[in-house]
Amino acid sequence: MTDQTAPTALDLPPLEPLPAGMQKYFGICQDKLGMVPNVLRAHAFDENKLNTFSALYNELMLGDSGLSKLEREMIAVAVSAVNGCFYCLAAHGAAVRQLSGDPKLGEMLVMNYRVAPLDARQRAMLDFAVKVTKASTEIEEADREMLRQVGFSDRDIWDIANVTGFYNMSNRVASATGMVPNDEYHAQFR
Amino acid sequence: MTDQTAPTALDLPPLEPLPAGMQKYFGICQDKLGMVPNVLRAHAFDENKLNTFSALYNELMLGDSGLSKLEREMIAVAVSAVNGCFYCLAAHGAAVRQLSGDPKLGEMLVMNYRVAPLDARQRAMLDFAVKVTKASTEIEEADREMLRQVGFSDRDIWDIANVTGFYNMSNRVASATGMVPNDEYHAQFR
Amino acid sequence: MTDQTAPTALDLPPLEPLPAGMQKYFGICQDKLGMVPNVLRAHAFDENKLNTFSALYNELMLGDSGLSKLEREMIAVAVSAVNGCFYCLAAHGAAVRQLSGDPKLGEMLVMNYRVAPLDARQRAMLDFAVKVTKASTEIEEADREMLRQVGFSDRDIWDIANVTGFYNMSNRVASATGMVPNDEYHAQFR
Amino acid sequence: MTDQTAPTALDLPPLEPLPAGMQKYFGICQDKLGMVPNVLRAHAFDENKLNTFSALYNELMLGDSGLSKLEREMIAVAVSAVNGCFYCLAAHGAAVRQLSGDPKLGEMLVMNYRVAPLDARQRAMLDFAVKVTKASTEIEEADREMLRQVGFSDRDIWDIANVTGFYNMSNRVASATGMVPNDEYHAQFR
Amino acid sequence: MTDQTAPTALDLPPLEPLPAGMQKYFGICQDKLGMVPNVLRAHAFDENKLNTFSALYNELMLGDSGLSKLEREMIAVAVSAVNGCFYCLAAHGAAVRQLSGDPKLGEMLVMNYRVAPLDARQRAMLDFAVKVTKASTEIEEADREMLRQVGFSDRDIWDIANVTGFYNMSNRVASATGMVPNDEYHAQFR
Amino acid sequence: MTDQTAPTALDLPPLEPLPAGMQKYFGICQDKLGMVPNVLRAHAFDENKLNTFSALYNELMLGDSGLSKLEREMIAVAVSAVNGCFYCLAAHGAAVRQLSGDPKLGEMLVMNYRVAPLDARQRAMLDFAVKVTKASTEIEEADREMLRQVGFSDRDIWDIANVTGFYNMSNRVASATGMVPNDEYHAQFR
Repeated sequence: MTDQTAPTALDLPPLEPLPAGMQKYFGICQDKLGMVPNVLRAHAFDENKLNTFSALYNELMLGDSGLSKLEREMIAVAVSAVNGCFYCLAAHGAAVRQLSGDPKLGEMLVMNYRVAPLDARQRAMLDFAVKVTKASTEIEEADREMLRQVGFSDRDIWDIANVTGFYNMSNRVASATGMVPNDEYHAQFR
Repeated sequence: MTDQTAPTALDLPPLEPLPAGMQKYFGICQDKLGMVPNVLRAHAFDENKLNTFSALYNELMLGDSGLSKLEREMIAVAVSAVNGCFYCLAAHGAAVRQLSGDPKLGEMLVMNYRVAPLDARQRAMLDFAVKVTKASTEIEEADREMLRQVGFSDRDIWDIANVTGFYNMSNRVASATGMVPNDEYHAQFR
Repeated sequence: MTDQTAPTALDLPPLEPLPAGMQKYFGICQDKLGMVPNVLRAHAFDENKLNTFSALYNELMLGDSGLSKLEREMIAVAVSAVNGCFYCLAAHGAAVRQLSGDPKLGEMLVMNYRVAPLDARQRAMLDFAVKVTKASTEIEEADREMLRQVGFSDRDIWDIANVTGFYNMSNRVASATGMVPNDEYHAQFR
Repeated sequence: MTDQTAPTALDLPPLEPLPAGMQKYFGICQDKLGMVPNVLRAHAFDENKLNTFSALYNELMLGDSGLSKLEREMIAVAVSAVNGCFYCLAAHGAAVRQLSGDPKLGEMLVMNYRVAPLDARQRAMLDFAVKVTKASTEIEEADREMLRQVGFSDRDIWDIANVTGFYNMSNRVASATGMVPNDEYHAQFR
Repeated sequence: MTDQTAPTALDLPPLEPLPAGMQKYFGICQDKLGMVPNVLRAHAFDENKLNTFSALYNELMLGDSGLSKLEREMIAVAVSAVNGCFYCLAAHGAAVRQLSGDPKLGEMLVMNYRVAPLDARQRAMLDFAVKVTKASTEIEEADREMLRQVGFSDRDIWDIANVTGFYNMSNRVASATGMVPNDEYHAQFR
Repeated sequence: MTDQTAPTALDLPPLEPLPAGMQKYFGICQDKLGMVPNVLRAHAFDENKLNTFSALYNELMLGDSGLSKLEREMIAVAVSAVNGCFYCLAAHGAAVRQLSGDPKLGEMLVMNYRVAPLDARQRAMLDFAVKVTKASTEIEEADREMLRQVGFSDRDIWDIANVTGFYNMSNRVASATGMVPNDEYHAQFR
């Protein structure tokens, strides 16, 4: 972990020494990603907070789902664009570029997902995610029905709802704490 | 668990038979609360989803914090009012009435938190939570500084940010899945 | 009149002595409701203001109409929820609970009318009232036509429009003057 | 009454024959204004509705007040501009032109009240009226205090709140019923 | 040029002496319009700025187009109403009154274009212009298709888009610089 | 000009043969930029439209100004982010990366300009541009005064207003016509 910049605007230094579990986890990140994502470093002041956050993230973004990992990242970016979250747009914009192999798709989702040439299924998925983000008060059965009509199962709808919800949480935590993305993301997969 | 109504609008029946861990957890709920909250029943189709969600909830709402449990529930209600989340307003409105012993406070937070006669610290806390909910894009250092000026530590700000984020997730999952609160909440602690 | 708290944040004491007509009116309220609603006490500094306000209220809410009294109260609550009016949500939320005998319905209308299991006629009525409240600029013939299609007459539409208008007035007067609801409302008809 | 166009988009013909009281009232309008305002013709299907509406209008707009009649008309126009109410902008825009003798002032209030060269007192009055119109949820003691600081009494604040409320009602009734202003207003006092 | 009031709130005096080209241009305005529009006087501090602005204006508003000059002015007013631009509403409201010979139409477009009795083609044109003004982010092929269905060619759509864009520029320049319309506009063509 | 994709969603083919002036202009673009920007190709159906648009663009973005070229591009990006304009964010995001030599700055302005570490002068410039973009109705002398207080002259304010206005036009023309940015922009200056 060579990047020593504080991961947020809060004065919450990591545990010292880092507990063994965290040390191992961060080591794996460094090996696989070439960095420890700042959202993890931000939680390093409390082991249970890091663990519960990571467990939910892993379940939602990496667990079994009718949504591909790319589709979950697409939701992450479309939601984060509504919320203007610098951290999540940088990190998950890079993930979309990587998983899709289509850098332009990443840019479109960051800038205005409506211009992306999506099929009806993915477009309905992002329309739902964006409506849930901007106006969850107004979601009704008709909105779920539109997802079913393009082929999503009720289990898929659960996953869309939860990934959308998760980034509405993460975006707000990132903005509220002044979280900064690792510089590495900006040039990746261009 | 006598209430057999589906907890959401999705067709996601609980595991059958219920795994031992879940059965035990739901039994404890039934004993302590007189019901199994529908948000838990909604997760009963997948054990890891229930566990990761519950673990984060417990860490944020029941773990150590400079915020009292009542204050965390007050944030839950103020956030849920912005998002018009029936489930969370019913459940956490009841929690505010219970923990505060002040039914009127619960009603005020549901209806318009600005009318509640709060001290400067709690008012700043809810103003921050509501701004993060409505316009996290616009949060800046000056907003965090206002929390510090009424006595919150940076660790407290982390907790305010995360509780606020959590209900922005839960509200959206509840609305997007059509989650309904247990009827018991409505008459409690009036 | 035992509740001596000021009904608003304004320094506008009641006429002293209270004119005979007012005294009689307030006595009837006390007998029938167990209180004098603060919106009436707030007008007690000027007899003609009290009378003209009350007369319009009585005509709209209690006069002949194709809308039931409960339906008019449902409009009152749905409109007041948009405007976040503590006074009107407390008072008319209680009225919905009383007239419907369904406390959950009152909570739903306070929290998010879209979750209430209404028939098409009442749902269209509240959708119209909420659109008129949030965006009267955009109301057109097509909106009126939707009311006619679920069975409302043009006279009914007049009444929906006027009840909706009335609470858009009352909500604003209440919020602008800092009007507080009588405490009695909160626990009623739960 | 020579103008026979229906005053609203609703099929609510006037009482036939017109009751004596209404006939007299409309005759006075015709003599003094050269027309019967369509808002009165719209109520002509029900005598009590006309009377209660007119009584409140007269009390608020013509009764004793620390606000001049012009100031009350200025509020009417500034509020109606927010709500895009064609009826009220036409009718009360003409009233501002007439009472002020300053046609440009009427245009400014219709188009954007912020460009009008008002003194601090009148500007604060319209700022309050516009905030109450757009976001009454957010009105607090600090808003009332700003009115007091430019010289308004608590009784004046009551009147500002009630005139503002009244046009938030009238604007919505006019838009919801498709009320059209008499053609005479457009060219008056230019 | 007898009106010597500054055309904006900025201290940007005209070139002195006025270059011959400007002098000629302003002379023509004075002869044909009885005034030099303040938007031109505002540019008089820099000849190239005046020329490039005027050239684009003339091309869009006076050049060949499938839209009549009145239709382009109607767009100007509908857009300016959304943006609350006093300068453009005064100037182009007068133009609509002049070109249409229908003063009421001008008032309707200033106050709420939805009340104007337009044919389907012109209504679609203004709906598109207003959506582009308020929410250009959300414009998609379906919006263009609605214009084609009422008879507009793709070249017409280009012109609608560009006139709409032009007033979204001009409205903002006028408001941002405090530009004031010439007094002459207010009473014209009533 | 090797890229043969249509520059917009409209069927407006370029003049054939391309007039000599356009041919020369596009040749220069090709030589200097390695492409002909699609916004120019989109105008290639009409020589006067291309010329008047280009002349205004060149005057505002390349002419003499107290604002550096980078600052004008920063305004372009901050405005385009509010309007979600894919074309302008891609093209001017690349320009900010190029002129600043700071790819992260470009990303910040695209994603949320508030996170960029700007000095007070540039921050005030972008705050003004964003307010003019979102709410030009509300701009008043106090907003201009804030620009003067960080050192901008009235001539600078003119330029900020006009560059801001220009992109509010261009964003809307691009979105309304379905304009697509040249693919080259996405990977440039990363």
